[in-house]
Amino acid sequence: MAAQAQRLLVDIHTHVYLPRYASFLRARASAPRIFTRSTPQGKNEERLLILDGEPSEGRPVGPQYWDREEKLRFMDKHAIDISVVSSANPWLDFLPAATAHSLASELNVDLETYCSTSPKVTGEVLSRLYGFGLLPLVPEVTVPSLVETVQQIASLPHLKGIIMGTRGIGKGLDDDTLDPVWSAIEKAGLVVFLHPHYGVDAKAWGEKENGHVLPLALGFPFETTIATTRMILAGVFDRFPNLKVLLAHSGGALPQLSSRLASCIDHDPAVASRLEHDARYYLGRLYFDAVAYGAEELGFVSDVIGRAGKYAQRGSSAAASKDGGVGQRKSGSSRMLFGTDHPFFPPLSETAKWKSVVENLEAIDGVYGWGEAEKQAVRGGNALALFGLQST
Amino acid sequence: MAAQAQRLLVDIHTHVYLPRYASFLRARASAPRIFTRSTPQGKNEERLLILDGEPSEGRPVGPQYWDREEKLRFMDKHAIDISVVSSANPWLDFLPAATAHSLASELNVDLETYCSTSPKVTGEVLSRLYGFGLLPLVPEVTVPSLVETVQQIASLPHLKGIIMGTRGIGKGLDDDTLDPVWSAIEKAGLVVFLHPHYGVDAKAWGEKENGHVLPLALGFPFETTIATTRMILAGVFDRFPNLKVLLAHSGGALPQLSSRLASCIDHDPAVASRLEHDARYYLGRLYFDAVAYGAEELGFVSDVIGRAGKYAQRGSSAAASKDGGVGQRKSGSSRMLFGTDHPFFPPLSETAKWKSVVENLEAIDGVYGWGEAEKQAVRGGNALALFGLQST
Repeated sequence: MAAQAQRLLVDIHTHVYLPRYASFLRARASAPRIFTRSTPQGKNEERLLILDGEPSEGRPVGPQYWDREEKLRFMDKHAIDISVVSSANPWLDFLPAATAHSLASELNVDLETYCSTSPKVTGEVLSRLYGFGLLPLVPEVTVPSLVETVQQIASLPHLKGIIMGTRGIGKGLDDDTLDPVWSAIEKAGLVVFLHPHYGVDAKAWGEKENGHVLPLALGFPFETTIATTRMILAGVFDRFPNLKVLLAHSGGALPQLSSRLASCIDHDPAVASRLEHDARYYLGRLYFDAVAYGAEELGFVSDVIGRAGKYAQRGSSAAASKDGGVGQRKSGSSRMLFGTDHPFFPPLSETAKWKSVVENLEAIDGVYGWGEAEKQAVRGGNALALFGLQST
Repeated sequence: MAAQAQRLLVDIHTHVYLPRYASFLRARASAPRIFTRSTPQGKNEERLLILDGEPSEGRPVGPQYWDREEKLRFMDKHAIDISVVSSANPWLDFLPAATAHSLASELNVDLETYCSTSPKVTGEVLSRLYGFGLLPLVPEVTVPSLVETVQQIASLPHLKGIIMGTRGIGKGLDDDTLDPVWSAIEKAGLVVFLHPHYGVDAKAWGEKENGHVLPLALGFPFETTIATTRMILAGVFDRFPNLKVLLAHSGGALPQLSSRLASCIDHDPAVASRLEHDARYYLGRLYFDAVAYGAEELGFVSDVIGRAGKYAQRGSSAAASKDGGVGQRKSGSSRMLFGTDHPFFPPLSETAKWKSVVENLEAIDGVYGWGEAEKQAVRGGNALALFGLQST
């Protein structure tokens, strides 16, 4: 890799509601929808309601959600060279199968155009925008229609992966029916970006008014954790060892619960005997964004990736990773990738930079035990490698 | 502290169904209950059903759940000097208020007797058994009745704290109605051991047969995470700064989600303005058991405890804890305490030691950056200090 490319800042967690999709949401009468209301100042304001019963009647939305020029301005402001853009939740989850299939195809072409007509990185053959496509993952869709869409995405040169929620075609991602889909994705070398939308049952949040804090801070990462764990338990990573899965929000709570998970499996022979490895091993097969807002969190995620190779054997014990230390932590960093979650977590006031972005960069910079090489790789080099983005 | 006491192994996460409680469960026709069934070998076996719809018709139970001599044998086998024993879930949650109140009082006296008649640690004035009492935390109980039970527990010399689920008196632990209870507990210097029971809505686990793995490995820690977060958001730790709360299972997912939580709060001024500190600060006020089955997990928990003091100010950023490293990690260890979760996670076959116990000890031993002093303190010294157990 050229010296310049090693210094590129690549954002792999950045969302868009493509104009076709935003129009679709404006035409809807129930969530997810975009609607217009008057502000107390008498202005019209568009608001996005993602889930029914969402606090505060959703959130204000504007051009930063759909306008490519806004995305590029955001990138310029934060010195982001390349973004791998994905549609924001809830994707196509709420649509009947036929609509979902045709809209997925259209949005995939739209996203290819969004990326392919973007400027190049100065002095590079690389574009500034790449994308994750969409599959029509809804109940009653046929598996051949999903596989066909995988192949469409694979044929679009700027699309490097697929963003995916956790429901599959209604029964989750541990549904064996999806095996031909995993197989097609694996063969195409596309990256699955696993992203939450539903959280967990809102009754868990109680009656106090806490805005979006609990569903966003806890519900989202719990959902990712559950989905990934169910994939591990169903043997998806045993059957598709080359499937590349990237977890949103640094894998949620999966890293911190992975040894407990291993212990629970170990105490249930019926489950343990189905799996080829200790649960901790599979975390070394996954990729994790670096969207955790804290240096200690990122360092810990790299620890659990780095230790994973020591847990190839079922029924391993905690002693396996003794004295892993900094070497283990450095090796784990190779599967971690910078992201911003733009255009969510906007600043509360107009500032030079978004705090959410600055904080994720500070977190990378502050990881104990990572050298400059690991930090640079997490900021961009790991993404170039994962997505096969060849620099000049 | 005497040199011997520094080497004591103290188990602060170890459960019992006191005989009075077990009899109560045997008399019930719905969960939670203990019932007898015939094994395929024609023997009678008692099984404990904790939740309705639990997989595999619950789990087999025997004397290790209620017999104090079994507890002491388990302790001897694993060289555990002292256990701080707590009733196992679901405590009194399913009872009407009057029954819950009287049964709590009786069980607190039973537990005091269980502990006070136990042997002493050889060469010490310390008993081998101490306990966490129970409050009648059920809907329609009166707050004075709860405060009265706090005072009963405080008057029983071997009871050093209170084990508590997450429902409070029906609205969770962020219910302002509980303030006089927190105040009484704080004044009495008792330790609250916050422990899960309900998990999250079982629909999240999908349709595959995975035994108890998902509710135990994920649901339990999620519940603890939610309850603690709701307490933070409700200002409980601001109003009761000397309240001592010990989190089961190393705080579940709270440590890994704490910077995300801080960021979500930071982006919601209505919530942020209610709190005195950055969310990460409160983790330094809490205590965490060391029941996480992995060295990296424990090291990380001590990182987030150790960094907490740097987050006293609201709206802190990730840069605050830069280069925390080993010093920060060592300081965080002072709020972590060894536990076993006995009699749960029993070995699959008769072995010299329980793997779950060995693994938690190996995890302590394997933490990168902890010296022998920190490891000894996590194994016992921190517990003696937290519970005010004065050695000779």
